[in-house]
Amino acid sequence: MTQSLDTRPQVLQLRKLLEGIDCGMLTTVDDNHSLHSRPMSMWNEIDNDGTLWFFTLANSHKVVEIQHHQQVNVSFSAPDQQRYVSISGSAQLIRDHDQIEEKWQPGLEIWFPNGVDEPNIALLKVKVNKVDYWESSSSFIPQTINLLELSRC
Amino acid sequence: MTQSLDTRPQVLQLRKLLEGIDCGMLTTVDDNHSLHSRPMSMWNEIDNDGTLWFFTLANSHKVVEIQHHQQVNVSFSAPDQQRYVSISGSAQLIRDHDQIEEKWQPGLEIWFPNGVDEPNIALLKVKVNKVDYWESSSSFIPQTINLLELSRC
Repeated sequence: MTQSLDTRPQVLQLRKLLEGIDCGMLTTVDDNHSLHSRPMSMWNEIDNDGTLWFFTLANSHKVVEIQHHQQVNVSFSAPDQQRYVSISGSAQLIRDHDQIEEKWQPGLEIWFPNGVDEPNIALLKVKVNKVDYWESSSSFIPQTINLLELSRC
Repeated sequence: MTQSLDTRPQVLQLRKLLEGIDCGMLTTVDDNHSLHSRPMSMWNEIDNDGTLWFFTLANSHKVVEIQHHQQVNVSFSAPDQQRYVSISGSAQLIRDHDQIEEKWQPGLEIWFPNGVDEPNIALLKVKVNKVDYWESSSSFIPQTINLLELSRC
């Protein structure tokens, strides 16, 4: 019997780790090999296969970086709980209108006043390979969730 | 008249941005081009030339990554204040005992029970090139502090 994707413990565990953290720092690599990060709001739940989604503008600098270098990191920090999460994955730009409509959430108008008809509105799809997390800052050793097998399904 | 390094507004501004944030996420690139981050505690004030210092173990995986790819990012998140900081720079391993002693702070025993005599104790020196920061998550546009000129002094 095939285990339902909904119940895969890796994804459930990742969702639980990110509970209450609205914003991650997305790190990308530019053509000079330097690393830049910026806050990205999480509006959608993590997919059952462990994919993260972010809204963006297709003409932003991070999109250019991602088109040249797909590997990214998204880190989440909850300092008051001493919980830190590192997500390694690969990012892809999605401009498909149906997918944008499907992922649209009320509240996104702050960034996109014209809603899904905003020029250059797009999605960043991040396929998660590996999650490291720390639930106390006094430990060197991360705990790890390996999602590579899921994202290859 | 040469302006004193102590009063360089870029460094003062960076120190102020990081006030109250004890832990940053250090992102490095591995040989497969994937990006990993982990929490790093700030024990020392930022140097007058904008250098950050972190204690580490010289045999940790991140050190291997840094030796192959010096460019790093350190991001700091203060979600309760909606303040997010991205620091792009280059990292270098320092094993000089005098510098380790100079930077040692009480409290580091949690990670290094043998103090400065811990086998493999080392410093990561991060020369900061560029700082982007957001003081409200409702803005796409970062404010920027350029420290490249300082670190070339």
